[in-house]
Amino acid sequence: MSTTGGTSTAGRASDPRARRTVAALQQALLTLCATTSPSEIDVSKLCRAAGVHRTTFYKHFTAVSEVAETIVADLLERIDSTPLDPEHGYRAWLDELLAQVARRRGTYSHFLGSDGDPAVVRNVCDRLVRRTAEVVPPSEDPGSADVLVHTLAFASYGLIEAVIANEDLDVAASVDAFVGGLPTTLRQQSAAA
Amino acid sequence: MSTTGGTSTAGRASDPRARRTVAALQQALLTLCATTSPSEIDVSKLCRAAGVHRTTFYKHFTAVSEVAETIVADLLERIDSTPLDPEHGYRAWLDELLAQVARRRGTYSHFLGSDGDPAVVRNVCDRLVRRTAEVVPPSEDPGSADVLVHTLAFASYGLIEAVIANEDLDVAASVDAFVGGLPTTLRQQSAAA
Repeated sequence: MSTTGGTSTAGRASDPRARRTVAALQQALLTLCATTSPSEIDVSKLCRAAGVHRTTFYKHFTAVSEVAETIVADLLERIDSTPLDPEHGYRAWLDELLAQVARRRGTYSHFLGSDGDPAVVRNVCDRLVRRTAEVVPPSEDPGSADVLVHTLAFASYGLIEAVIANEDLDVAASVDAFVGGLPTTLRQQSAAA
Repeated sequence: MSTTGGTSTAGRASDPRARRTVAALQQALLTLCATTSPSEIDVSKLCRAAGVHRTTFYKHFTAVSEVAETIVADLLERIDSTPLDPEHGYRAWLDELLAQVARRRGTYSHFLGSDGDPAVVRNVCDRLVRRTAEVVPPSEDPGSADVLVHTLAFASYGLIEAVIANEDLDVAASVDAFVGGLPTTLRQQSAAA
């Protein structure tokens, strides 16, 4: 279980040599993923494919999942940084996430989904939970607010997997159907966007 | 990324010596989980705590996640075997799953959730997706049916995490609220139960 929930900052390394190492590892991981599930790629296999020494690997990362996370970093970043408030609305946030997923479907498909990297999936879900908590109205019963946050956040992750799995999906119509099923308070917020 | 999506049958080993080995590993994993996130428990650490030789470990399992899966096997089993058809209904299936989660909250909390084992979470989600696909009505547009299957299945996983995280949660009321938000066709099916 040498997986990790954290996100490495190695993808943004400033030293040119470090950047080359990270780029070589990212490229090797994508190449290996074309034929192998990421759960079957260990540090030795990745280092061999990238021509990077294990010692060098461990200077930047603690697990293969962290390299995967640098590859989906733009999705993680978008989840975190896209505005999500009554003015912009939940729907606009979701639209922007899913447009990003549709654009980079081919790359994300290696890491998100049933044959992907469970640690990366978890990281995406944790961020969706954190952001979703910002829009769910507070409730007298914290448990019921928590139910709404968790069901909504994981449902939106399900939407991401559906977009990845179905190239011909009408993403806007799917978001429509999804938002149409939301509780009224959230739907109003979405309409206000 | 030495995780695995499969389920070992080692938990049901018939040889008494094998059963003792598996039980020792399960007990050691639960003990370690009281103080350590499962993602930080590797095969060496688990074997040391269980007093089991690594060679013996690899006779039964390929990764620590597989031991974790034998501990949550009753949940996986319930997802798979609880009847789920128009007669019994989606709601009865969900009620039964969540009652099981509430009963074994303390144990499941080590493996499901943010600090749990992402590979076990993935396995639970994959099974929820498979079962949910049985109740979502076929659509002329396979993509939109797939969106419904994925959002609903992951939302129900979110409900599981909410039940685990909130000891005082009114589980029946949460299922009510969840089912109340379902598309009409599924809600009718739930009401028929």
